[in-house]
Amino acid sequence: MSQATMTEREPLNGVNVPTLFATIDAVKENRELAKFQFRATNKWESGTHSRSTIKSYSGAGGDHEHVREFMVDADHPQVLVGDDKAPLPVELVLAGLASCLTSGIGNIASARGVELYSVESTIEGEIDVQGILGLNDEVRNGYQEIRIDFKIEGNAPQEKLEEIVMQSRARSAVFDVITNQVPVQVTVNKG
Amino acid sequence: MSQATMTEREPLNGVNVPTLFATIDAVKENRELAKFQFRATNKWESGTHSRSTIKSYSGAGGDHEHVREFMVDADHPQVLVGDDKAPLPVELVLAGLASCLTSGIGNIASARGVELYSVESTIEGEIDVQGILGLNDEVRNGYQEIRIDFKIEGNAPQEKLEEIVMQSRARSAVFDVITNQVPVQVTVNKG
Repeated sequence: MSQATMTEREPLNGVNVPTLFATIDAVKENRELAKFQFRATNKWESGTHSRSTIKSYSGAGGDHEHVREFMVDADHPQVLVGDDKAPLPVELVLAGLASCLTSGIGNIASARGVELYSVESTIEGEIDVQGILGLNDEVRNGYQEIRIDFKIEGNAPQEKLEEIVMQSRARSAVFDVITNQVPVQVTVNKG
Repeated sequence: MSQATMTEREPLNGVNVPTLFATIDAVKENRELAKFQFRATNKWESGTHSRSTIKSYSGAGGDHEHVREFMVDADHPQVLVGDDKAPLPVELVLAGLASCLTSGIGNIASARGVELYSVESTIEGEIDVQGILGLNDEVRNGYQEIRIDFKIEGNAPQEKLEEIVMQSRARSAVFDVITNQVPVQVTVNKG
């Protein structure tokens, strides 16, 4: 990075750009800081309704707590035999993907000195519930396809704004989780 | 199903079991009813903070709206250069997986006539943020591994309760999304 670029490293779009670069530099010096573990606990409430609680995580060489405990409820709507008290788990996944890409857009635009005016997206996923209902073994349980479309405005040409979206895709944790497989181990505690 | 089993089909654990079986029967008769599309819109707020809004979906042969609009915020904590206003996108994914498996446990236990006393789980995922920080191309962006451990109590032997958890895993939409790949198309609206 040239000195000229350095002078652009000031807070932008609500992103503390100096802290962002300092974080990258710190991890570059000590790769162990990059190891994070995220967690949630979940408690069944009734029917298809459950509540996840998110508080602690570890990373950057230590244990941390969010500034407050976050609760994320999920349920099924009536048409899928629930009480519709909260979004579906598969809708939380869509929110996770859209927000991960959008966080990345916020960081990347700021690092590149682009002021964002607005970032909006719509995300859709197709599911054939024959899978989860056990009616057809050839139909997968999850989404068959997900599409997300961004509308982004800022003080840069459209081409540069599109590059920021695509760079966010290239570095998105949730995009990777969904488009590549992650091993998941399910166990039952014998108490 | 024998007539003896039929008599067990009454609401249990907050699950309307007759409706559940009627839904399965209806889809068996008309497979087109199984096609669902779920949606969210997302709006960038500031920095790494964004808000997803979930309201409409289609399926079972029509368009639907949740009983109310659900909002799901996401942010990064300070150690990852955010304001910690909400869970991380990757934590929403953990909540999505835990809640999907737990919804399934609620439905499957009820369909099998097992009364649940409690279902609790803890879920953990490991991420090396060298990937998302662009510091090492050999490190993936997303979770390297996810583990979820259930503690389940009900009026059935432990072995039967464990079978319910494993059947939920076998029919979970989010488990499938995470452990198998889903194609994701990211586009930018030219306005």
